[in-house]
Amino acid sequence: MPLSFDEHDRIPAIVQDAETHQVLMLGWMNRESLDHTFATGHVTFWSRSRDELWEKGATSGNYLNFVSMHKNCEDNSLLVMARPEGPTCHTNNVTCYYREVDPEHDLP
Amino acid sequence: MPLSFDEHDRIPAIVQDAETHQVLMLGWMNRESLDHTFATGHVTFWSRSRDELWEKGATSGNYLNFVSMHKNCEDNSLLVMARPEGPTCHTNNVTCYYREVDPEHDLP
Repeated sequence: MPLSFDEHDRIPAIVQDAETHQVLMLGWMNRESLDHTFATGHVTFWSRSRDELWEKGATSGNYLNFVSMHKNCEDNSLLVMARPEGPTCHTNNVTCYYREVDPEHDLP
Repeated sequence: MPLSFDEHDRIPAIVQDAETHQVLMLGWMNRESLDHTFATGHVTFWSRSRDELWEKGATSGNYLNFVSMHKNCEDNSLLVMARPEGPTCHTNNVTCYYREVDPEHDLP
């Protein structure tokens, strides 16, 4: 079965550190970013805010080196294993998930 | 900062096994499913196909027992740690990500 993209032609991609198994980030891929990931070995997303191809690390040097990619049972999300160079988060944290949710304050 | 929901009032939630650190699934939550998760201790989503609250395991018995929840740097995705009762995937696999992507056949 081919991958199933959403109404914006994108698919969510979870990135997990292949060694530590820490979940690093969630990004969005389209066909172009998938092709770029497989061609370069650098995990590449589609930036929804800038509406352009986003090779993670091209600016910061903090590349996510591609290891493997799995799809879920419904073909509508991806799990990417990668070896990160440096911190993944733009805040310089290892992972983007560095803050615990506080139900008292985080729920709108 | 409160959580940021998408145009459908939902937020993607990655579920990771708190012990094995295996990524199990990606689901979508809204305010109601967040409240239900915190109130019951059972990880609960919003089913996009059925457009209704979806307490994982309510039918199958394969509950995801809530451990903790983190938000990403942009407040627009969640990482939920859980202890699964039985296989998470409806195919009886431990994880929904049991198939590797084959670029030759999986890209549309």
